[in-house]
Amino acid sequence: MCLKENERIDQLFADGIKIIQSPKVFSFSLDAVLLANFPKIPKKGKIVDLCAGNGAVGLFIAKKTKSKIYQIELQEKLADMAQRSVALNHLEKQIEVFPLDLKDSLNRIASDSCDLVLCNPPYFKGLPTNRKNPNPYYAIARHETHTDLDEVLFTSSKLLKMNGHFAMVHRPDRFLEIIDLMKKNRLAPKRIQFVYPKPEKDANILLIEGIKDGKLDGFKVLPPMFTYDTVGNYSLETSRLLYGQ
Amino acid sequence: MCLKENERIDQLFADGIKIIQSPKVFSFSLDAVLLANFPKIPKKGKIVDLCAGNGAVGLFIAKKTKSKIYQIELQEKLADMAQRSVALNHLEKQIEVFPLDLKDSLNRIASDSCDLVLCNPPYFKGLPTNRKNPNPYYAIARHETHTDLDEVLFTSSKLLKMNGHFAMVHRPDRFLEIIDLMKKNRLAPKRIQFVYPKPEKDANILLIEGIKDGKLDGFKVLPPMFTYDTVGNYSLETSRLLYGQ
Repeated sequence: MCLKENERIDQLFADGIKIIQSPKVFSFSLDAVLLANFPKIPKKGKIVDLCAGNGAVGLFIAKKTKSKIYQIELQEKLADMAQRSVALNHLEKQIEVFPLDLKDSLNRIASDSCDLVLCNPPYFKGLPTNRKNPNPYYAIARHETHTDLDEVLFTSSKLLKMNGHFAMVHRPDRFLEIIDLMKKNRLAPKRIQFVYPKPEKDANILLIEGIKDGKLDGFKVLPPMFTYDTVGNYSLETSRLLYGQ
Repeated sequence: MCLKENERIDQLFADGIKIIQSPKVFSFSLDAVLLANFPKIPKKGKIVDLCAGNGAVGLFIAKKTKSKIYQIELQEKLADMAQRSVALNHLEKQIEVFPLDLKDSLNRIASDSCDLVLCNPPYFKGLPTNRKNPNPYYAIARHETHTDLDEVLFTSSKLLKMNGHFAMVHRPDRFLEIIDLMKKNRLAPKRIQFVYPKPEKDANILLIEGIKDGKLDGFKVLPPMFTYDTVGNYSLETSRLLYGQ
């Protein structure tokens, strides 16, 4: 196992899993941790993590399931980090990393075959406008330059079997579009959870789960989560997710 | 001012306003209080309260504005209570109560003329199934026996001028339908607030505001509200709304 320049190994809370990170290339965010903890993970079957980055979501859930986990990541450098983290944790039999454009994922994974698709997609439309952050890896991970929400949902829906579950983390300001495009792509929205930075602030993260070809009823709004407490420390629930305490 | 059988006068928190209530006929709920405190109230112009019940929402907001307030209530007995509360508070010049089916409200109020429409509509589809609560006034107020969400939103949209605001209280389980029908009726959803009974529970009330012919962007999810605290007392924010303390 060799680390490349600027890389380090971080310990994930989940059962001693380790992950290769790089401050110069890519490190996973709280959003990935929230996503990994949001849906019910099927005990067996097939799980796909689209827009996998350095593989945090798949690594987080690996010990909870015997399912095969496929990680799809467009950026080769990130997919390579994910692949080496899989090896570092001796999970090669369970997790397979495909350095692929998600458009091509159906060439590698059969359509209508998956039990769960997880996705932490790019949140922002079009090109980055923030010139202070010229990191090209984050630019592609965060902005819809190489894919967009409709394509993400189209691909997810194709991968899922009927009644398969889809779970995504995204931003509340794109909520109306998320609902529309999920329905357009046969993913019935079922559960939503809003995450607020603090008790008095507007939500800045949403977690949403849908069911392929599910009924459009029984929609649930789960209890709110807060990232920080009123004095600016991680809230109890955030630190439990991040550090297990 | 004469009270009828079983009626009493309750004091509203807002500036010494009084309201006629009846445990046998109709008393306003927390939902009306939440709705009255949700949207920004225009200083002048025309405000309509659809499905006004015994008039709580209009009475709550009267002192905050010089706008003319029209209350539309189908049930004559409830409209009569609202009318007598208006008189009790000497608000006849500001508030007008129409005992009308909301379908007919455009015969009394010009279309495209209103700045704000508020609505606490029936929440439940079809007929009441709860035989323990045979009160026919609540049955009509709570169940879509005489109107439905599409008609409520159609009427609201017709009443509003372009860029006029619409605010409604409803149930989260009908959220997908609310979003769809608002858009169908030219009301762009803009702000939403979820109300949770307690911190660990799913939301059971939603407040939503839209703008007639507004753009479908800039959607905001406001800070969560909790009705009760963890030991089952009204939360600070609920008691502030109800009692001003």
